[in-house]
Amino acid sequence: MDFEAFKKEGLIYDEATSVLAYQTGARFETGKAAFIMQPKTTEDVSRLVTYCVRNNIEIIPQSGNTGLVAASIPDRSGTQAILSLEKVKATYDLNLHNRSVIVGAGIRLSELNERLEPHGLAFPIDLGADPMIGGMVATNTGGARFLHYGDVRQNTLGLKVVLPDEHGSILDMNSALRKNNTGCDWKQMFIGTSGTFGIVTECVLNLHPIPNQTAVALVIPSDPDAIFQLLAHLERYFGSQLSAFEFMSKNAMTRAYEHLPSLRNPFENGEIPELALVVEISRSWEPVEGELPVEEFLQIGLTSIWETQTISDALFGNSNDIWSIRHTLSEGAKYAGHLFAFDLSFERDIVMEFRKSVTKTLHDFDEKLEICDFGHVGDGGLHFNVILPKKSLPDDLATYENELRDLVVGVAVEIYGGSYSAEHALGPKNQKFYDRYTPETQKLLADNFIKSAGIKKCGRVVLGT
Amino acid sequence: MDFEAFKKEGLIYDEATSVLAYQTGARFETGKAAFIMQPKTTEDVSRLVTYCVRNNIEIIPQSGNTGLVAASIPDRSGTQAILSLEKVKATYDLNLHNRSVIVGAGIRLSELNERLEPHGLAFPIDLGADPMIGGMVATNTGGARFLHYGDVRQNTLGLKVVLPDEHGSILDMNSALRKNNTGCDWKQMFIGTSGTFGIVTECVLNLHPIPNQTAVALVIPSDPDAIFQLLAHLERYFGSQLSAFEFMSKNAMTRAYEHLPSLRNPFENGEIPELALVVEISRSWEPVEGELPVEEFLQIGLTSIWETQTISDALFGNSNDIWSIRHTLSEGAKYAGHLFAFDLSFERDIVMEFRKSVTKTLHDFDEKLEICDFGHVGDGGLHFNVILPKKSLPDDLATYENELRDLVVGVAVEIYGGSYSAEHALGPKNQKFYDRYTPETQKLLADNFIKSAGIKKCGRVVLGT
Repeated sequence: MDFEAFKKEGLIYDEATSVLAYQTGARFETGKAAFIMQPKTTEDVSRLVTYCVRNNIEIIPQSGNTGLVAASIPDRSGTQAILSLEKVKATYDLNLHNRSVIVGAGIRLSELNERLEPHGLAFPIDLGADPMIGGMVATNTGGARFLHYGDVRQNTLGLKVVLPDEHGSILDMNSALRKNNTGCDWKQMFIGTSGTFGIVTECVLNLHPIPNQTAVALVIPSDPDAIFQLLAHLERYFGSQLSAFEFMSKNAMTRAYEHLPSLRNPFENGEIPELALVVEISRSWEPVEGELPVEEFLQIGLTSIWETQTISDALFGNSNDIWSIRHTLSEGAKYAGHLFAFDLSFERDIVMEFRKSVTKTLHDFDEKLEICDFGHVGDGGLHFNVILPKKSLPDDLATYENELRDLVVGVAVEIYGGSYSAEHALGPKNQKFYDRYTPETQKLLADNFIKSAGIKKCGRVVLGT
Repeated sequence: MDFEAFKKEGLIYDEATSVLAYQTGARFETGKAAFIMQPKTTEDVSRLVTYCVRNNIEIIPQSGNTGLVAASIPDRSGTQAILSLEKVKATYDLNLHNRSVIVGAGIRLSELNERLEPHGLAFPIDLGADPMIGGMVATNTGGARFLHYGDVRQNTLGLKVVLPDEHGSILDMNSALRKNNTGCDWKQMFIGTSGTFGIVTECVLNLHPIPNQTAVALVIPSDPDAIFQLLAHLERYFGSQLSAFEFMSKNAMTRAYEHLPSLRNPFENGEIPELALVVEISRSWEPVEGELPVEEFLQIGLTSIWETQTISDALFGNSNDIWSIRHTLSEGAKYAGHLFAFDLSFERDIVMEFRKSVTKTLHDFDEKLEICDFGHVGDGGLHFNVILPKKSLPDDLATYENELRDLVVGVAVEIYGGSYSAEHALGPKNQKFYDRYTPETQKLLADNFIKSAGIKKCGRVVLGT
């Protein structure tokens, strides 16, 4: 099969206009693609991969292109080809009794959940963006309700993958079994590896009942250092009903209110506290007569935890109002100046220690920097945003950013044993940290896997040496 | 380091008396070991592995030796050496705020949970046996509360592993992070692979709050085919409180009562139904005033589900009484005759179809066979026990068993897409099914991994070609 035949078949486009949209990333990074491939089936993917591998064309798999690490767009060489998965979406096979679904990699999370909703089910990975399932597997996204549902890995029962080898080998691991220990669980190799080991074309997902009752409170802790004691109390009190424990810093909230003045301010006299927590509990069941309503249960729980002196105030209110604040933080930070975003994670009790330490470090580096952080601290995740006023941008921004990133990631990884990629995965932005912090033994495993499987470079990341 | 030096150091024993206990498996299978190694640390393991690999001595890793597939005892050649992990247990580092613990592979599940209990936490993989943590990782055990907590894989945050290569290379993946996507999650390769790829010496585990309230009912479904509709109703009604959905067949219950006549019989007039389900809900929180007590919540829920005509009767009672029946099934089957045990799993809605079909097949094969099955059907697991009266044992039992196993596994895998190893893993007993049913592409991946990592044969299973 040659290039022109694929074009005729409608699987390859190389007109500038058709390629354009696929070259720009979610944070406006740009690349240049040689051409774009739009397969509809796993077999199409296999044929296109075979063609590319045999002709030494590097493939950049792309699904929703919503990632924040520029992993789904090509570099600027103009030699790489984008393989879009957006049309690989015909497969949709729902098994209600097994609580599972087989879907094509190109279905969007929102579209999947719309289709599941009438059945009272959801794939409950709760994200700011609306990615496609293939990309969610490739990055192993977690999101705001990880505490309750786990990440993509924990909810992936099976996968179908095309290896970037000479034959475009198809690995069919499309099982919907929950317990299956018959050797190595190879699908794990393709979760969170950014498409470098293989291109996900189909996924079998574990589904969950949709929550029927939720209650949310804005909780102000008595002391930043107390929030993980507070979390332990909440986990004890609410058990498996606890579905979110989100942290918002004063700066992040302030910038959100500046960005969206219509946002409701529920704090006393409108005074934004040093930090606030979104505490949510949810129940999949319908309200039962005689049962304590979910809002009351939350109130009684928080009142009881009050005695531990870990809470200074708790504000109850409309769930949408409270989540609106949380959901505006990202945009608020984006428009507050020039944004340097870090997607970090720690053992939970370390998060506040890290913040204190790195704040001092950053202040010494450049006192004009503002820390505007928030995150899913219930699972140790911290979206650590650093903002520089646009008027203070240095002439050599690249060098400045490099130093800043080295500094923050250095403190996070070297001093506090954290991760520089909690849930956004690698991509060119994190390649150097992978190179720096991955043990040689693990790079060697990757090397060996790549070489012995005859896998060619695929995607923007290099996992070997 | 040579053999005598290791003996002097107390790391190797080769007296017949010291080796004996380690040579016998949980189902009385016997092997013969060359010697036994008893390391205390990861470094000891590394040195011993180096010695064995360089001297071409095959290693059989052994932790609790409670497995049912003979994977932890040597063959009868007398050339293999057992590496016992029972003394690798000094490490115990509990992080309450992170809800995680680092433990040595040699700690027993019961011992771990005793130490966690005062803190209100548990590693809640609920099994009949009392294995050591290292073996639980190597087999990826699931158990009776998978529905609520997931399996070992879903609760393993980090691992330390010694590769069976010339250097006894140590892979330190001891992270307690929950969100960490910085390349391939290599620890997954060592979960459920029976020690073939590496020997687990330390584990970082995700812990859960201990249930403070539970309620159990024995539910008799209106029709075997309706049980997965019933399960869907239960999942909808009780949500994350549903913690067990266990299935017991009439034969299995009958044999349990024969084996242990003191067992309480709660059924009307003592008449054992065709099948019964253990339905359990649990809450980690303490009872809250004004809240519907857990027993009442279970009763109201089941009453409401009654309308769906999926339930024919529900018996409430003491949790221990009900679980006693469930927990006696395994012993009952063991003493009812000659036992052929299968550890199967299916998509949930397939379990009853498989039972019907295979019952006919087995009856055609030998009408003296009795099916005495039960299982964790909430996650599709089925402990499919087949019993032959001892007086009917054929002269050539090995051939008979071979044919019987081929038949049952054939129907399970080929017709119903099931697994021949839900949670007991491979071991010599399942090797031939691995060879038969694993796609060549996956065996090739295993081959490549083993060769390129310089890994020697370790354990009783061969995952390559």
